Amino acid sequence: MKPSLTFWYEFASTYSWLAAERIEAIAGAAGVGVRWRAFLLGPIFAAQGWTTSPFNVFPAKGRNMWRDLERQCELMGLPKVVRPDPFPQNSLLAARAATALADALRPNFSRAVYRAQFTEGRPIADRRVLAAILSDIPDGEHALAATDAPATKAALRAATDEAQSRGIFGAPSFTTASGELFWGNDRMEQAVAWARREAHP
Amino acid sequence: MKPSLTFWYEFASTYSWLAAERIEAIAGAAGVGVRWRAFLLGPIFAAQGWTTSPFNVFPAKGRNMWRDLERQCELMGLPKVVRPDPFPQNSLLAARAATALADALRPNFSRAVYRAQFTEGRPIADRRVLAAILSDIPDGEHALAATDAPATKAALRAATDEAQSRGIFGAPSFTTASGELFWGNDRMEQAVAWARREAHP
Repeated sequence: MKPSLTFWYEFASTYSWLAAERIEAIAGAAGVGVRWRAFLLGPIFAAQGWTTSPFNVFPAKGRNMWRDLERQCELMGLPKVVRPDPFPQNSLLAARAATALADALRPNFSRAVYRAQFTEGRPIADRRVLAAILSDIPDGEHALAATDAPATKAALRAATDEAQSRGIFGAPSFTTASGELFWGNDRMEQAVAWARREAHP
Repeated sequence: MKPSLTFWYEFASTYSWLAAERIEAIAGAAGVGVRWRAFLLGPIFAAQGWTTSPFNVFPAKGRNMWRDLERQCELMGLPKVVRPDPFPQNSLLAARAATALADALRPNFSRAVYRAQFTEGRPIADRRVLAAILSDIPDGEHALAATDAPATKAALRAATDEAQSRGIFGAPSFTTASGELFWGNDRMEQAVAWARREAHP
């Protein structure tokens, strides 16, 4: 069995961005395949009584996150952070587009959405912003049209429900074939190693 | 100038425990001195409207923390986790005793309190539990007596106030001489490297 890992990400999440930038290299080096699954944190946060990101609910936590993000981007050689306004961005349309795309096209599209949002400050809820990104992706036009399709909406709802039922409460998260859950960009290496051990015990 | 880092820790915090187990080795290898400062998260959490640990306030987050803690202990070669009941423990007495001890005695005492709490499930709010631990520490008896002294209480309050004014919202945290703040056991290596660069620019 080829080792595999599911990468659960939310387009409005800064640490999901960092994970998206490095997961192919980290997992690839370990021979672990990655399944990218976009989901929405909004409904999960709402179930905890939050109407916005915890980084807004708790200002000291938010200040630390933005400073930490600057430091991580510098360490990772990423462009300088531009904070989107408002933060968090409404990620529904981007998540639907990612859901509508074929698996193989999702990583490039998702990274492009993150870069537009967090290094250019572009509004990812704007259909024209997504259309511009999708114009560089094969079959991108079709994915944009498919964001309105009932099947796409249902698939994204199912992903969010599945995330919640797997115990996911934040993003990024990683789950292995056996259901082992790892939360946060900082746990990526351990999640990859776990997935590898499950396949080669 | 000798590089130095302040290690802010809360006795009831599981990840503060993991940090306490490894900070001397990590910082020592980099030639960075560590100042151990116990503080209380209770007043900081209360300011956010929480009356208990976020790991209790948000059950999915709590389930993940306990599982993650088991995994980290295994990776670090630490004994199996025994969950204290209740969690979090009242850490006031332990924090006062740590505050009353000389700087050089604080690391051994603090690790012993963490081990009693998280690998034996002993109640660290119990004066007898602390007395047994302090009986192995030079001048430990004096520190226990000093937990009731107004100067000790004031010093711990000052540490907690200072933590909050430095932007600390969780534990463990690390601050450098310039005030750079790092949150979480996972940021220890970066905090140590930062402290080193500040001293040897």
